[in-house]
Amino acid sequence: MRVLVLHGPNLNLLGRREPEIYGRVTLAEIDATLERAAGRLGVELRCLQRNGEGEMVDAVQEALGWADGIVVNPAAYSHTSVALRDALAAVDIPVIEVHLTNPAAREDFRHRDLIAGVCRAVVAGFGPAGYVLALERLAEARGGGEAAR
Amino acid sequence: MRVLVLHGPNLNLLGRREPEIYGRVTLAEIDATLERAAGRLGVELRCLQRNGEGEMVDAVQEALGWADGIVVNPAAYSHTSVALRDALAAVDIPVIEVHLTNPAAREDFRHRDLIAGVCRAVVAGFGPAGYVLALERLAEARGGGEAAR
Amino acid sequence: MRVLVLHGPNLNLLGRREPEIYGRVTLAEIDATLERAAGRLGVELRCLQRNGEGEMVDAVQEALGWADGIVVNPAAYSHTSVALRDALAAVDIPVIEVHLTNPAAREDFRHRDLIAGVCRAVVAGFGPAGYVLALERLAEARGGGEAAR
Amino acid sequence: MRVLVLHGPNLNLLGRREPEIYGRVTLAEIDATLERAAGRLGVELRCLQRNGEGEMVDAVQEALGWADGIVVNPAAYSHTSVALRDALAAVDIPVIEVHLTNPAAREDFRHRDLIAGVCRAVVAGFGPAGYVLALERLAEARGGGEAAR
Amino acid sequence: MRVLVLHGPNLNLLGRREPEIYGRVTLAEIDATLERAAGRLGVELRCLQRNGEGEMVDAVQEALGWADGIVVNPAAYSHTSVALRDALAAVDIPVIEVHLTNPAAREDFRHRDLIAGVCRAVVAGFGPAGYVLALERLAEARGGGEAAR
Amino acid sequence: MRVLVLHGPNLNLLGRREPEIYGRVTLAEIDATLERAAGRLGVELRCLQRNGEGEMVDAVQEALGWADGIVVNPAAYSHTSVALRDALAAVDIPVIEVHLTNPAAREDFRHRDLIAGVCRAVVAGFGPAGYVLALERLAEARGGGEAAR
Amino acid sequence: MRVLVLHGPNLNLLGRREPEIYGRVTLAEIDATLERAAGRLGVELRCLQRNGEGEMVDAVQEALGWADGIVVNPAAYSHTSVALRDALAAVDIPVIEVHLTNPAAREDFRHRDLIAGVCRAVVAGFGPAGYVLALERLAEARGGGEAAR
Amino acid sequence: MRVLVLHGPNLNLLGRREPEIYGRVTLAEIDATLERAAGRLGVELRCLQRNGEGEMVDAVQEALGWADGIVVNPAAYSHTSVALRDALAAVDIPVIEVHLTNPAAREDFRHRDLIAGVCRAVVAGFGPAGYVLALERLAEARGGGEAAR
Amino acid sequence: MRVLVLHGPNLNLLGRREPEIYGRVTLAEIDATLERAAGRLGVELRCLQRNGEGEMVDAVQEALGWADGIVVNPAAYSHTSVALRDALAAVDIPVIEVHLTNPAAREDFRHRDLIAGVCRAVVAGFGPAGYVLALERLAEARGGGEAAR
Amino acid sequence: MRVLVLHGPNLNLLGRREPEIYGRVTLAEIDATLERAAGRLGVELRCLQRNGEGEMVDAVQEALGWADGIVVNPAAYSHTSVALRDALAAVDIPVIEVHLTNPAAREDFRHRDLIAGVCRAVVAGFGPAGYVLALERLAEARGGGEAAR
Amino acid sequence: MRVLVLHGPNLNLLGRREPEIYGRVTLAEIDATLERAAGRLGVELRCLQRNGEGEMVDAVQEALGWADGIVVNPAAYSHTSVALRDALAAVDIPVIEVHLTNPAAREDFRHRDLIAGVCRAVVAGFGPAGYVLALERLAEARGGGEAAR
Amino acid sequence: MRVLVLHGPNLNLLGRREPEIYGRVTLAEIDATLERAAGRLGVELRCLQRNGEGEMVDAVQEALGWADGIVVNPAAYSHTSVALRDALAAVDIPVIEVHLTNPAAREDFRHRDLIAGVCRAVVAGFGPAGYVLALERLAEARGGGEAAR
Repeated sequence: MRVLVLHGPNLNLLGRREPEIYGRVTLAEIDATLERAAGRLGVELRCLQRNGEGEMVDAVQEALGWADGIVVNPAAYSHTSVALRDALAAVDIPVIEVHLTNPAAREDFRHRDLIAGVCRAVVAGFGPAGYVLALERLAEARGGGEAAR
Repeated sequence: MRVLVLHGPNLNLLGRREPEIYGRVTLAEIDATLERAAGRLGVELRCLQRNGEGEMVDAVQEALGWADGIVVNPAAYSHTSVALRDALAAVDIPVIEVHLTNPAAREDFRHRDLIAGVCRAVVAGFGPAGYVLALERLAEARGGGEAAR
Repeated sequence: MRVLVLHGPNLNLLGRREPEIYGRVTLAEIDATLERAAGRLGVELRCLQRNGEGEMVDAVQEALGWADGIVVNPAAYSHTSVALRDALAAVDIPVIEVHLTNPAAREDFRHRDLIAGVCRAVVAGFGPAGYVLALERLAEARGGGEAAR
Repeated sequence: MRVLVLHGPNLNLLGRREPEIYGRVTLAEIDATLERAAGRLGVELRCLQRNGEGEMVDAVQEALGWADGIVVNPAAYSHTSVALRDALAAVDIPVIEVHLTNPAAREDFRHRDLIAGVCRAVVAGFGPAGYVLALERLAEARGGGEAAR
Repeated sequence: MRVLVLHGPNLNLLGRREPEIYGRVTLAEIDATLERAAGRLGVELRCLQRNGEGEMVDAVQEALGWADGIVVNPAAYSHTSVALRDALAAVDIPVIEVHLTNPAAREDFRHRDLIAGVCRAVVAGFGPAGYVLALERLAEARGGGEAAR
Repeated sequence: MRVLVLHGPNLNLLGRREPEIYGRVTLAEIDATLERAAGRLGVELRCLQRNGEGEMVDAVQEALGWADGIVVNPAAYSHTSVALRDALAAVDIPVIEVHLTNPAAREDFRHRDLIAGVCRAVVAGFGPAGYVLALERLAEARGGGEAAR
Repeated sequence: MRVLVLHGPNLNLLGRREPEIYGRVTLAEIDATLERAAGRLGVELRCLQRNGEGEMVDAVQEALGWADGIVVNPAAYSHTSVALRDALAAVDIPVIEVHLTNPAAREDFRHRDLIAGVCRAVVAGFGPAGYVLALERLAEARGGGEAAR
Repeated sequence: MRVLVLHGPNLNLLGRREPEIYGRVTLAEIDATLERAAGRLGVELRCLQRNGEGEMVDAVQEALGWADGIVVNPAAYSHTSVALRDALAAVDIPVIEVHLTNPAAREDFRHRDLIAGVCRAVVAGFGPAGYVLALERLAEARGGGEAAR
Repeated sequence: MRVLVLHGPNLNLLGRREPEIYGRVTLAEIDATLERAAGRLGVELRCLQRNGEGEMVDAVQEALGWADGIVVNPAAYSHTSVALRDALAAVDIPVIEVHLTNPAAREDFRHRDLIAGVCRAVVAGFGPAGYVLALERLAEARGGGEAAR
Repeated sequence: MRVLVLHGPNLNLLGRREPEIYGRVTLAEIDATLERAAGRLGVELRCLQRNGEGEMVDAVQEALGWADGIVVNPAAYSHTSVALRDALAAVDIPVIEVHLTNPAAREDFRHRDLIAGVCRAVVAGFGPAGYVLALERLAEARGGGEAAR
Repeated sequence: MRVLVLHGPNLNLLGRREPEIYGRVTLAEIDATLERAAGRLGVELRCLQRNGEGEMVDAVQEALGWADGIVVNPAAYSHTSVALRDALAAVDIPVIEVHLTNPAAREDFRHRDLIAGVCRAVVAGFGPAGYVLALERLAEARGGGEAAR
Repeated sequence: MRVLVLHGPNLNLLGRREPEIYGRVTLAEIDATLERAAGRLGVELRCLQRNGEGEMVDAVQEALGWADGIVVNPAAYSHTSVALRDALAAVDIPVIEVHLTNPAAREDFRHRDLIAGVCRAVVAGFGPAGYVLALERLAEARGGGEAAR
C-alpha cells in the first residue's frame, strides 16, 4: 500500500509558528513518526508540504496511479479551495482530512470546510497523532472498499 | 483513569438503522470493543446511551467527580442542543466528540455543530473505531494537561 | 395492521389550551374517535402523548417490529428536532404528519418543518379530522408499497 | 353547496408527466372521482385547469358569487405567486390547498409556499385522494363557520 | 398567591459550574432566599429544577390550576425550545424570565430568545437577586391585571 | 398627450375586495375620475386592467408608439415580475407607479418592489387620488424631459 | 388646519448639492411654493429644516397640540432612525413622507425605510411638487379620518 | 428532427428595445437565420414568441409528441418561473437555454436562473448567434442520447 | 454614591405617548419616585432626558469624574447607536439598562440591542419599577466591585 | 488573429476524471480539435493548462501584446478567484468563458461565478464543442469591436 | 489652502478613554501637532470635535465655501450615519478618512463603513500620525485634481 | 532595519493596467521611490511582486529571520486568502497593508478584507505614496514596540 501525506500552507513553520496554538513539534518530526508507523504497517509513504493551491492540486494529481490513499491537512485551503476539492474528487483515492487543532473552536472563517465533503473521515484536535490515526485507518481499510467507507 | 462514553439518540438502533449509512455493527459490540481497549489502557469505563436531551445532560452531570474524560457521540443533538453544550462546558472534564459518519458529506442541517466548540478534539467518519481513538487520546493525555490540548 | 398515533408536547392540554386557536375537543375525544375509525378499518391502534423530545424518540423506536404505520403530530418539535427526524427515518415505517392548525398562517418560527421531509404525507388545518384522514391513508396503502408513496 | 376545483400549471399532463413522481392517474380521472364524491355529498362542482398565473386569478375571481368553497392545487405557483394569494384573499371564500406529492421532501425552491397562509387547511402527499379529502372537509364545514376554521 | 419557580438545565450545578461566570451561590441557597422573600410577601412557593425540555413542559403544565405566577430561568432552552414557549403560552399564567448573567454580552447563539416573547418581563444580569425581583413583581401585580402587564 | 393607465391583478375587485384595506371606491369610479382629470389636462387616456403578467407586458408593449406616459399600479406583480420591469424599461416611456395603500406598512413579501427602479416616481397610500397625482405629474412634465425626471 | 413641514439633514443645501440628482430649486423656494399652496387651502404652515436626529425628534414633539398634520422628508434618517419613527408614532398626528428622488432607484442602503411604516402615504420622485401633493392630501382628509387613511 | 424555438417575454421588441444592450437585429431576422440553419441541418422548425408565463407553459406542452428538441430563451422568466421549469422537466425533451446577453454581468436579480437546472446546456452573450449554436448542438446530438448530455 | 439616570428619546412624552403600550405614568413621576428611593439608599441622583444621540453621548461624558453608576434607558438608540455604546464603554462606570416594555415581544427592528453588550445588567418589561430595581442594584454593589459584576 | 486557450485546474485529468460527469475526451484531443478549427479559421493558437491560480494569472498576462482573444475555462477558479478576474480585466482582450458541464445544475458552491462578469460571453454544458464555439465567436468578431460585444 | 479637521464622537476623551486601545495622547495634543504641520505646509486649519451626528453634518456644511479639504475621523458614525455620508458627498470637497486604530481587527459592527465610499483615501491604525498623513496628502494634491484622486 | 515590500497579483502591470483606475506610475518607479525613502530612513529593502497565493506565502516565510517589517499590497488576495493571513500571523513581524485605490468605493466583492485583521495599520487610496507612508511608519516604530501598535 502506498499513501501520500500532503501538508498544506504554513505547516513548514510548525514548531516555530504560534507554538501556543500549534505546539512545538516540527514537521520533520511528524514525518519521521509517520515513517515509523508506515514501516510497522507495511505502507510506503510520500510526505510533501506545499504552500500553493495549484501545487497542492499538482501533488494530488501526481498521486494518481501511485497512491492507494491520501492523508491531507489542507490548512488554510480547507476554507477557500474548490480546486483542491475537485482534485481530490477527481483522483478517486480514499482521503482522510487531518487538522492539528479543532477549527470549530477558532475564528468564524475557519468553520466552513470545503474539503471535508469529499473525504471518508476527518480527525481534528488530536495534534500530530491525528496523522498516524488517519494512516492506520487507511491501512486497515485496504482489504475492503466497504471498510473504508 | 475513568471515562464516560455517552451515546446520543437513536444510536441504540445501530446495526438495524439504515445500515447502508451506519454499518452493521451494534452498539453492544462497540461497547464490548471499548471495554477491551479500556482494559488494555487501564481505564475504567461507563457506557450509556440516551435518547433525551435532558437525560444526556443528566449523564454528563453525573460524571462530575467520577470521570476524568468523556467520549460523546451527540448524534442529532450535535446540531440543536445548547443544553448539552452547557453541561459539557460546566463539568470541565476533557471531552472528545465522535461521529460514525462524516456529517460534512450529508444534509445541510447536519453541518452546524454546537458541541464541537467545547471539545478538545473531533473524530468523524472512522466508524466504530473512532470511539477507540478518542479513548486512547484521553488515556494518553492523562499524564499532562498540555498533551490533551 | 398496527398503527402508532403519537401526539407531541402540550397536546395533552387540548380543549383547555388557547381554545380560540386549537378548538374545544380534548385529546381523549380525539383518541376515542380514532379508535372507532380503527375498528372500522380493522386497524390495531396505540395512542401516546409525550412532552419530551427523547420520550418521543423512545416511542418511535418502540414501534419498531410492532407498527406498520405512524401518525405523528410533532407539535413544537416539528420546528426544532433533528432527533425525532432521525428516529422516524431510522425505523423505516410509513409516517404521516398531522397538524391541527395550519402553521403556514402562524408565527415565522413555525414555518420551518424538520419532520415533513421524512414523511409520506402531511395534513394541516383539518382539525381533529386530520388524524382520521392520516389513519385511513395508511390503511389504504397497506396493500401496496407504491400506493403509500 | 358549490365548489371550484382549480388545478394549476402542468397538471393537465398528469399520467404522462414524470409518472415516477406523480403517478399514472390522469386529471380527467381525478375530476371523475371528484364528481362522484360531489354527488354523494350533494355538492355542485366546477373543475378547471389553468397554466397561466393570470388565468388562475381569473378563475378565482369568477368563483365570486357562485362558489362556497375552493379546492386549489397551485402547483408551481405555490412558490412564486403573490397575485394568486391576493385573489384568494380577496374573494373571501374558504380555500383548501392540495399537493399530490409532499413538497417538503423535494427541491429547496419548493419549500416556500406563498399560498398556504391564506388557506384554511393544507393536504400534501395523499396523491389524488387529497382532493377528495379537501372536498369532504369543505362540505362538512358548510353548516358552521367555526367548523371550517 | 402561588408561584412556580422553574430552573432550567445545568442550574443544579450552580456554585460549582464556571464560578467566574455564574458566581459561587448554590441553587439551594437561591431557593432558600426565595422562600424567605415569599414568606415576607405572603406567597406560597414551589421550586423545581429540570434538565429535560419535556420535563420543563411537564412542570409548567402541572402549574395549571395551582400557580398564579411563574418565574422561569430557561437557561439553554431560551435559545432552542418552541415546546417550552408553547407550554408557557398555553397555561396562560403571568411569567417572568430570569437570567443570572446578561446573555447579550455572551456568545452569538445566546442572543436569540424564543421564550421572552411570551413573558411579561425579563431580568438579566442581576445574579441571584433577579429571582427575588421577579417574585416581588408578580406579588405586586397580583392586585390588578393591568399592573402585571 | 396620451397616457396609458394600467391596473394590475385583482384591482377589478376594488370596492368588493377587503374594503377595510382598499376602501369602497370601484375601479370604474376611479377610471371615471381619471377621465375627468384627463379632460381638464387635455390628455387622451386609455384605461386597462389585467390579471395576467404576460397580459400586462402586452399592454405595455402596445403603448409603444401611442403613449407619452404610463401610470401603472402593478399590484402583486410589483413584488414578483421581472418581465413587467423589462417591458417598462424596453418601451422607454415615462412611468409613474401608484399603490392605493402603503406597502411599507404591510406584509414582508410586499416590501420588495421590482418595478420602482424603472419608474420616475412612486406614490403610495394616497388611495384613488394617487392616480390623479400621477397623471398630473406626467402632464406637467410633458413640456420638458428635465421636469419629468 | 395646521401642518408642520419638516425637512431632514442636508436639505438646506438644495440647489447647491448635487444638482444633477436633486435639481436647482432651493429650500426657500420650496417653502415659498408651499406657503402659496397653504394659503389657497386655508392651512397654516410651519416649515423647519434640521440636520440632527434629536432635533428632528424635538420638532416632531413640538408639533404636539399644535399641528393637525405633518409632511416629513426624513432624507438620510429614513434609513437609520428608530428615534424619529418613535416620535412620529408617539404624537399620533397624520404623517405623509416625501422624497424628492426615488430611493428605490439609488444605492442599496437607501432601500430600507424605517419611517414609511408609520406614515399614511409616501410620495417619491415627484421632485418639489411632492410636498404640495402631500399637503393637499392632508387638507383633503381633514374632514374625515377615514379619508386620510 | 423537429425543434421548437421559444422566445420569452419582450423579445418581440428586439431591435427596438434598448439597442445598446440587445443590438439592432429583430426577432424576425433571427428566425429567418434559424430557418436557413435548420434547412442546412435538415431540421424542421417552429418559432414562437410569448409574453405570458402560462403561454410559455402551453407552448412547451404543445411540443410534446412533436418536437425532438427545444431551444428556449426564457428572458425574464429565467429568474422567476417555477412553472416553466416544471413544464420543461415534464415533457422530457432535450432543452438548450439561450441568452442574448451575459446575465452574470447585469443586475443582481438576473443572477438566479431557475431554468438552467433542467437544461442540457446554456449559451449566453453570443448575441443572435447563440440560437444557431444551440440548434446545431441539438442536431448533432440527435444520433445519440449520450452525445446530447 | 452618585448615579446618573439618563432617559433616551421620546421618553419625555411618557403618559401621553401610546399609553396602551407605555402606561400613564409621566417621566416627572418616575424621577420623583427615583429621588425617594435614592434618599432611602443614600444615593445622590441626576436625572436627564435627551432626544439627540450626541446629547446622550455628552451626558454620559459629563458623568465622568462625578457618577459611580449609570442607569440608562436608551429607547430607540438601543437599536442604532454605536456612539452611545462607545461613550458608555469609554467612561468605565457600571451601567444598567432599563426598558419599560419587553422589546423581545415587539417589532423585529427592536430585537437588536447594541447597548446591552456594555452593561452589567438589563431589566425590561417591569415598567417604571425597573428604574428603581436598577438603582438598588447599583447601590448594593457599591461595596464591592465583584458584587456589581 | 491569435488566441490563447487557457484550461484551469484539474482539466489535465480529462478523460480520466469522473468520466460520468466530464466524458471520455482528453485534453489533448480537445486541443487537437481546436487546432483544426483554428487552421480552418486562420487563427494562431496557444493552448495552456494550469493548476495554480497565480500561474493562470501569469498566463493571462503573457497574452498581453500577443493575443487578440482568450478562451478560458477557469474550472474551480470560476468560483473563488478575484486575482484571475483582475488579470482578465487588466489585459483588456476579449474573453469567452467555457464550461464543459452546466454548473447551474451542480453544487451550490459552483453557482457563484466571479469570472463571467468580465467576459463577453459564456458557453456551458456543450462539452468539448463549447471551446470551438467560443473560438469561432472570437474569430467572427475580429472584424468589428461591435460584433464581439 | 484651508482644511477642516473634524473629530467624531467620544474623541474628546482621548488619553482618558480606554488608553490600552487608543493610547495616551490627548485631542489637544493631536490638534497642536496638526497646527505645526499645517504651518510647515502653508495650510490654514480649523479643528472641531462633535459628539452629535447632526452637529457633524452642520460642521461639514459650514466648510462649504471655506475649506479646500476635509480630514474626518467619524468614529462611531462610520458605521451608522447616512446623514454624514450625504453631507460629505454634498459639499464636494476632497475628504480623507482617519481612524486611530484598525477597525478591521475589532468587533463585527465596526466592519461596515458607510463613509469610506465617499472619501479619496483612508488611513487606519497609524495612531495620531494618521491625521498628519491625511493633511499632507491633501496639501500635496492641492496643485492638481488628478493627484488627489 | 530590514523591510520586505511585497506586491500582490497583477501589480506588475501597473501603468499599463486600467490607468484610469490605477494611474500611470509603474511598479519599477514605485520601487525606485521606495529605495530612495529607504536610503533616507536607513532601512534595507527587498521588493518582490508575486502573482501566486502560494508564492506570496513563500515570500512572507522567507522574511522570517531577515525582516523587521513587512509592507504588503495583497491586491486580489485581500479578499480571498486565508493562507496569506496565516503566513503573516505566523511570522510575527509588524505588517502594514497598502492599497493604491480605496476598495470601499469599488465592487462588493472587494469589501471583505481577510488580511487587515492581522495588520498594524492600513492605508488605502493614497496611490503610490501609500507605500512610503507605510515604510516611514515602520521605521518610526522601530525604536519601540508600543509605537508600532
